[in-house]
Amino acid sequence: MEKPYVVGIDMGGTNTVFGVVDARGTILHSGSIKTGKHADVNDYVDELAQAVRCVVEQAGGSGKIKGIGVGAPNGNYFSGCIESAANLPWKGRIPLAKLISEKLENIPVALTNDANAAAIGEMTYGVARGMKDFIMITLGTGVGSGIVIGGNLVYGHDGFAGELGHVIVRRHNGRQCGCGRQGCLETYASATGVARTAREYLEIRNEDSVLRDLDPDTLTSKDIYDAAIKNDKIALDIFESTGHMLGEAFADFIAFSSPEAIVLFGGLAKAGKFISEPIQEAMDKNVLSVFAGKTKLLFSQLKEADAAVLGASALGWEAKEQN
Amino acid sequence: MEKPYVVGIDMGGTNTVFGVVDARGTILHSGSIKTGKHADVNDYVDELAQAVRCVVEQAGGSGKIKGIGVGAPNGNYFSGCIESAANLPWKGRIPLAKLISEKLENIPVALTNDANAAAIGEMTYGVARGMKDFIMITLGTGVGSGIVIGGNLVYGHDGFAGELGHVIVRRHNGRQCGCGRQGCLETYASATGVARTAREYLEIRNEDSVLRDLDPDTLTSKDIYDAAIKNDKIALDIFESTGHMLGEAFADFIAFSSPEAIVLFGGLAKAGKFISEPIQEAMDKNVLSVFAGKTKLLFSQLKEADAAVLGASALGWEAKEQN
Repeated sequence: MEKPYVVGIDMGGTNTVFGVVDARGTILHSGSIKTGKHADVNDYVDELAQAVRCVVEQAGGSGKIKGIGVGAPNGNYFSGCIESAANLPWKGRIPLAKLISEKLENIPVALTNDANAAAIGEMTYGVARGMKDFIMITLGTGVGSGIVIGGNLVYGHDGFAGELGHVIVRRHNGRQCGCGRQGCLETYASATGVARTAREYLEIRNEDSVLRDLDPDTLTSKDIYDAAIKNDKIALDIFESTGHMLGEAFADFIAFSSPEAIVLFGGLAKAGKFISEPIQEAMDKNVLSVFAGKTKLLFSQLKEADAAVLGASALGWEAKEQN
Repeated sequence: MEKPYVVGIDMGGTNTVFGVVDARGTILHSGSIKTGKHADVNDYVDELAQAVRCVVEQAGGSGKIKGIGVGAPNGNYFSGCIESAANLPWKGRIPLAKLISEKLENIPVALTNDANAAAIGEMTYGVARGMKDFIMITLGTGVGSGIVIGGNLVYGHDGFAGELGHVIVRRHNGRQCGCGRQGCLETYASATGVARTAREYLEIRNEDSVLRDLDPDTLTSKDIYDAAIKNDKIALDIFESTGHMLGEAFADFIAFSSPEAIVLFGGLAKAGKFISEPIQEAMDKNVLSVFAGKTKLLFSQLKEADAAVLGASALGWEAKEQN
């Protein structure tokens, strides 16, 4: 193969991680820089390009690179821009794909948001290999999603489709979401949502719980998992109610695109059966009978440290020249 | 064009309507038979094939027919079967596409459910011409949907995707649905759902209403429309609450596939601004900001009498030989 590698760049609020990846999903060379260090996005791209050029040289030079894929908050596949991302220092609409390509010998760059990149990564290297219809749900600081239908990522008419963290799961008295609305799935199933559920449970219930020994303001789903392992009732109930909420929402997602699988990734996904059992229970209870038992619930098997770069890199295979 | 026509067959619970259609969406010859007359599906197909052969001969014979499209309850595009349709006399899984093709000189037959056929009809001949991403919502006895993404109908991994009438819009204390669950969109926005809302309003409220002069058990959305025209407060409120319910649901659909338009068809759609204004209001209020103002709300402009046959016929253009 003349150009056997791609580059994946995962831009997070804190770090930007990147690597050169081969067709089997092996990260050959990788590196990272701080995302928020530069007030001017051009300075950021300069530093990023220099660092990426290093790993590209290690892999044999830019002639070996088929394309670059970027996963970035609010990344738009159609425009190659990031637009008003809350966790990034640069405001407005930034033509990130173009800026990166220009600094790297015009290697084609494709860009999308992190959850879409994760979905493409699962389809290319992960548990969704060979699947044409699945939904990726990323359970992190927020709840993201990447929807694949007929083998293609769903971008919608504007490039922003697949915001399943923001479907309304509680119409009345729903929790306030960062998006300005109330009752979004993300307010219950994100890391902060789960921590909030924990604080609420600890406040309104009287049972003993090992969670009471922890600072309620810094509780994580890992803490709750550790407590659940010890059979802590409140911890188990937190996963159960969160899982039910997810399973109810998934039943509606299935009515939409009837996917072969829903793939979970992220911190909460590490809670294993504590979260998967209540999700499955609520899916089974709420799904329309024609879909009963048809959609698999899967966990990503990609190493968390690698998944973001792999996901972004997978997009590199389909990157086209910028104009 | 060697084969300039297609045949559309719309199988309803009462009548099966069919016609020969050209590439511009003109119905050249049409006819109908009773659906429920035959206890044996083979007898039904015999009568249907004979009647269709008549209109095909009028159009110049089967050599002129590129394909046959069938819209049928619970029709599965992948298998060409209808499966356990509640309103049809034949139970179990029936290979309808194959049966029809065999009786009609092996003309290729494609089959899907009626809402999907309606979506393809709008894309081929209607307001969605040229659109690659839209959602068709049919507001009839039930609430159906056909979802188009990237120019293709979404069938899902099993051929049954797009059951948006059965997303849960009220998690608590929702109305009982025919599907066995509670709170489905269909229980509020279907013809029977709207009539039920009318009966509830008339019972729990005291205002005068021209609707009180009618038999509550046979109220239709047409009756409510006629009352709304006369500025009847209860009638207006029925459309308002139904429209809000639809608009809230549409906001979630937009988060899924970010369509260019949502196209409405069916009885309730004829209520015009009485229903479109509250839908738009609730969409605007509930949609995630990134999608605000981007998705058009459109009404089908196809003549209701023709729409079902046109929709089914549009599928005929892509029908392939049965094996």
